[in-house]
Amino acid sequence: MEIIRTIKDMRQWRAKGGTVAFVPTMGNLHEGHLALVAEARRRAERVVVSIFVNRLQFGQGEDFGAYPRTFDADCHKLIDAGADALFFPDEAELYPRVRQDFNIEPPHIQNELCGAFRPGHFRGVATVVCKLFNIVGADVACFGKKDYQQLHVIKAMVDDLNMPVTIVPVDTGRAETGLALSSRNGYLSEEERAEAPRLYRNLSMMRDALLAGENDYAALENRVREDLTGAGWTVDYVEVRQADTLEIAHAGEKRLVVLAAARLGRTRLIDNVEVMR
Amino acid sequence: MEIIRTIKDMRQWRAKGGTVAFVPTMGNLHEGHLALVAEARRRAERVVVSIFVNRLQFGQGEDFGAYPRTFDADCHKLIDAGADALFFPDEAELYPRVRQDFNIEPPHIQNELCGAFRPGHFRGVATVVCKLFNIVGADVACFGKKDYQQLHVIKAMVDDLNMPVTIVPVDTGRAETGLALSSRNGYLSEEERAEAPRLYRNLSMMRDALLAGENDYAALENRVREDLTGAGWTVDYVEVRQADTLEIAHAGEKRLVVLAAARLGRTRLIDNVEVMR
Repeated sequence: MEIIRTIKDMRQWRAKGGTVAFVPTMGNLHEGHLALVAEARRRAERVVVSIFVNRLQFGQGEDFGAYPRTFDADCHKLIDAGADALFFPDEAELYPRVRQDFNIEPPHIQNELCGAFRPGHFRGVATVVCKLFNIVGADVACFGKKDYQQLHVIKAMVDDLNMPVTIVPVDTGRAETGLALSSRNGYLSEEERAEAPRLYRNLSMMRDALLAGENDYAALENRVREDLTGAGWTVDYVEVRQADTLEIAHAGEKRLVVLAAARLGRTRLIDNVEVMR
Repeated sequence: MEIIRTIKDMRQWRAKGGTVAFVPTMGNLHEGHLALVAEARRRAERVVVSIFVNRLQFGQGEDFGAYPRTFDADCHKLIDAGADALFFPDEAELYPRVRQDFNIEPPHIQNELCGAFRPGHFRGVATVVCKLFNIVGADVACFGKKDYQQLHVIKAMVDDLNMPVTIVPVDTGRAETGLALSSRNGYLSEEERAEAPRLYRNLSMMRDALLAGENDYAALENRVREDLTGAGWTVDYVEVRQADTLEIAHAGEKRLVVLAAARLGRTRLIDNVEVMR
C-alpha cells in the first residue's frame, strides 16, 4: 500500500488511470471502515483511503484534540483490507493558510438534527469532502449510513454542485449487542459500554412499531427519550424523518429513517435505522 | 462545432480524452471573448465555450431579464474562432430544483468593491463556475482581466478548494478609444458611448501617477471621482488595491490594481488597470 502525503503525489497516483474508489476517514479504523474498503474494492480497480482529522468540522469544546490518532494500527488494517493507497496529508497540506477561505454552504438541513447541536459541523464536512474529491478525482466514494445526515449532505452536495463522483452508501457495522461501530465507542467506560446498546434497542423498537403501522411519531419519540433519560442518558434528539430528504415526516410516509443522538457520560453517540414500509 | 445541451453529453464529449480548455461566458460575445477563445486554443487540444446567463449572479433589479441573448450570432463567432464545442444548457439543466441548495461561500472580498453594490453576486458566480468546472472537467479555464474581482475570486476558489483546473487570465480587450469591451456597452446611447472612454482615461492617469511614485491613493481616487461625477457619472467606487490579494493597498506597495465601477445613465461600467512598479 502506497502512503501518499502530498496533493501533488495524490494527483499523480490518480493520473495512472483506471477506475478509483475512495473512502474518506478520520482514522482510528474499525470494522465499519473496513466494510467501506471492501465495498470500494467491489466498485473500482483501485482503492484509496484517506485519513485526515478535519479541524473544520469540530466545534468549540468538541474532541478535536482528543480524537484518537492510531496511524500504525490503521495502516496494518488497510493493508489487510486490500487498500492500494492511503492519502495521509497533514493540516498544512490541506489548510496551507490555516483558515479555509472558501466554504461549501449547505442548505438548512445543516442546522437540524446533529447540526442543531454542532453549529458549522456540516459546513466543515462538506468543505473538506469537496476538497478531497477535487484532489483524489475518484469515480466512486463510499460513506457509511451510520452518519446518515452526513451521507445525506454529501449526496445532496454532489448532486447539486454536479460533482463527477458517485456516492455509495454502506450499511452500518454493528457489534453483536447491536451497538453501531464508532471511533467514539473507545471513549466509553466498561459500564457505559454495557449500557450503550440501549440506543439501538430503542431505535429497533421504533422501527418495529412503524412497520406495524404506528403513525404517532411524537409518541414514539417521547417514549424513547424517556427510556434513555431514565437510564441516565442526555438526549440531543430522537426524530422520525423522511429517508430521502431528511425533511419532517408526515403520518403515513412510506420511506422513513429514525435518527437519534444522545450522550452517555461524556460520550456523544449517534445511530439511526431506516424504515421502508 | 458541436452544440451540447445536456450535462450528460458534455461529460461524454470531455471523456473522449486529450487536454481541454474552457471559456465560460454569458454569451453576447465580443472581441474580448474571442481573445479568450484564442488563448484557450493555445492552451489545450480542444476548446469548449459555455453560454449560460446565470440568474444566480444577478441581484434584485439587475438586468437578468434584459441581458442580451444572441445565440445565432454567438455560434458564428465561435465557429470562426475555432471553438470545438459549445455547452449551452438551459436553466432546468443547471438548476433542476430551481433553487440552488449548496453554494460556494467566498470570503469577505465578496462584499467589497463590486460586491458592496451587488450583494450575493460573487457567491452566484463562484457557485455556477464550480458547477461548470465539475461538469466540463477542463484542464484549463480562461477568464478576462476586465472582471478583475471575478478573476480573483475564481483563482482563490480554485486554490482554496483544490479544484483540478488551471486558471489563465487574459488581458482586457479594448476599443480604439480605450473603452473596455463589455456586453453591457450595447446598452449605451451614442452620446454615452462617446463619453464612456473617460473611465479608462482616468484609470490610465492614475496608473501614470502611481508609476511616477504617487502614494497618496485617496487623493488620486478623489480626483477621479470628481472628474467622473462632474461629467455626469454616478461613481460606485474607485480604489487602489493590492493586485494579488485585492486587499487594501498601503503606501509604497509595488503590485497594484486600480479598480472602478461607475454608472453612465442606466449602464454600469467597470474597468481596471494593473500597476506593477
